[in-house]
Amino acid sequence: MQSLSALNALYNEKFSVNNFHQNPTGLYKPVNHIMNIPGKRIRPILLLMSCDMFGGDVKQALNPAFAVEVFHNFTLVHDDIMDNADIRRGVPTVHTLYGTSAGILAGDVMLAYAYRYLTDVPAQYIAQLITVFNNTAIEIFEGQQMDMDFEKRNDVAEEEYLKMIEFKTSVLLGCCLQLGAILGNAGAGDQKLIYEFGLKLGLSFQIKDDYLDAFGEAEKVGKRIGGDIVQNKKTHLYVTAFNKADAAQKAQLTALLTEKDEEKKIAEVKHLYEATGARQHTLDTADKFYKVALESLAKVSLSEEVKKPMAEMAKRINNREF
Amino acid sequence: MQSLSALNALYNEKFSVNNFHQNPTGLYKPVNHIMNIPGKRIRPILLLMSCDMFGGDVKQALNPAFAVEVFHNFTLVHDDIMDNADIRRGVPTVHTLYGTSAGILAGDVMLAYAYRYLTDVPAQYIAQLITVFNNTAIEIFEGQQMDMDFEKRNDVAEEEYLKMIEFKTSVLLGCCLQLGAILGNAGAGDQKLIYEFGLKLGLSFQIKDDYLDAFGEAEKVGKRIGGDIVQNKKTHLYVTAFNKADAAQKAQLTALLTEKDEEKKIAEVKHLYEATGARQHTLDTADKFYKVALESLAKVSLSEEVKKPMAEMAKRINNREF
Repeated sequence: MQSLSALNALYNEKFSVNNFHQNPTGLYKPVNHIMNIPGKRIRPILLLMSCDMFGGDVKQALNPAFAVEVFHNFTLVHDDIMDNADIRRGVPTVHTLYGTSAGILAGDVMLAYAYRYLTDVPAQYIAQLITVFNNTAIEIFEGQQMDMDFEKRNDVAEEEYLKMIEFKTSVLLGCCLQLGAILGNAGAGDQKLIYEFGLKLGLSFQIKDDYLDAFGEAEKVGKRIGGDIVQNKKTHLYVTAFNKADAAQKAQLTALLTEKDEEKKIAEVKHLYEATGARQHTLDTADKFYKVALESLAKVSLSEEVKKPMAEMAKRINNREF
Repeated sequence: MQSLSALNALYNEKFSVNNFHQNPTGLYKPVNHIMNIPGKRIRPILLLMSCDMFGGDVKQALNPAFAVEVFHNFTLVHDDIMDNADIRRGVPTVHTLYGTSAGILAGDVMLAYAYRYLTDVPAQYIAQLITVFNNTAIEIFEGQQMDMDFEKRNDVAEEEYLKMIEFKTSVLLGCCLQLGAILGNAGAGDQKLIYEFGLKLGLSFQIKDDYLDAFGEAEKVGKRIGGDIVQNKKTHLYVTAFNKADAAQKAQLTALLTEKDEEKKIAEVKHLYEATGARQHTLDTADKFYKVALESLAKVSLSEEVKKPMAEMAKRINNREF
């Protein structure tokens, strides 16, 4: 078993330079811009850890690990265009720097490179890898569409919201873990369990993210508290509060959407999240998915010792320590 | 060997309905909009013909044939956004009907579906198919970038122009033929020859297209003559005229870019295409590539009789009869 820093070193050694063509520069400068923003590389790391855990050769998993990172960054480039986002991880977004056309095309070529790296593995793995990856990619696009649809609706059910974040963000974590498992020659049962582990861990993470945006501490979360409320974002808190609210509370929540005083808006919406029981429900839901994730990992047919680094990683992710 | 109408019937029978998920409808309505516009389906047909010619089972080639059609339509959706095009084949473009975000996301999911259908074949073909397809996809995006870059330049060399149209449009024809050859169990040599055949046929077609836009007959070409000139498009005619022009002719060509009288502009630019020798050179270049294409087909290690339908198809494409 390899340490996290050893996996990171292998990955960085291989992918620190020249992973794409150089020309035309109008195409590849935007690609390198997004790829070079420092990040946690959580998806490739999960893929490598999974491969390693199942006893695979992590060197064979490096290309697919890079593929999921390229894919994830491609989704960010296109999502930022759709969301009109100017800043990403503290630097200007691709389309802000290079224009919308360059952003669209850079994303497209990144998707093709993701497939190229994904399939640059020993031949016997290709069919399995690509089936999992294709299904995931399609679900992610469907999740992004649901997210855009929900922004225009006020009657989103909790179940619909959970399906949206599952597709938009969680399936990719499950996918990374399953790709690693495939490359570690895991059986179908273990593949399914480790996929579920990633999926539920992702759900827990995303719901906790919604929670912390309203009820976290600014210095711990690293951003202003209440940003989602100010932006009228449909979060797990908002969706459950609206569904649990009585007629008067619904009217209040709706009226607050257009409240101009931001501090007042944050305080009153948070009060309604508390009064409707949404705050507790959101916290409970995140915890529930985290537990289900760990239960899924526990069922994987490997020794506790071998699974320990993965359980540790889940804990770090859940505690915002990774 | 199957007739063209038999291949068409097989394809239409399989792909006339329900080739994508149904929900969310905001994602799949745009996809179905572009896929349902009647077209010649030249790429899937070439793929099926190639498979058939090499003795393959065309039923196994149907999914990849659909994949190249989905891929081609995806490029149209994204290109139309980049080019600000309102109309495509006589109907509104996807982003005009559904908005830019829907156009971006519909294209993205189409690309994922293209990979899904491409790889829905017996396992032994997947690695070869995907290598050819990945390389082609990357070249097509590079070609689109070159095309956008060239629109801002006046000094494009003929060689650069040829590389651009090769990447942007011709490699996909070569790719279709090679994918069919792979599924027909053709050897590496024949795969290369049939790819070259498609590539050069595509080049010839595109250059002839430039020629006919200025020097064709309106009723035969099916559109207004001189449209490229009015829009200042960098065509093979324009690029070679500019490169062959003396200082006075260069100044005239440049001045005509801003000429408001369209009829005058068309007449004078065409006069310069004639005077610089660009008209003849463009015609010769198209003919040259058509000949090279046929020579490549001639070298394929199959009998003349078996290759006859493909030669006939090339002729029909070249004569705008398909």
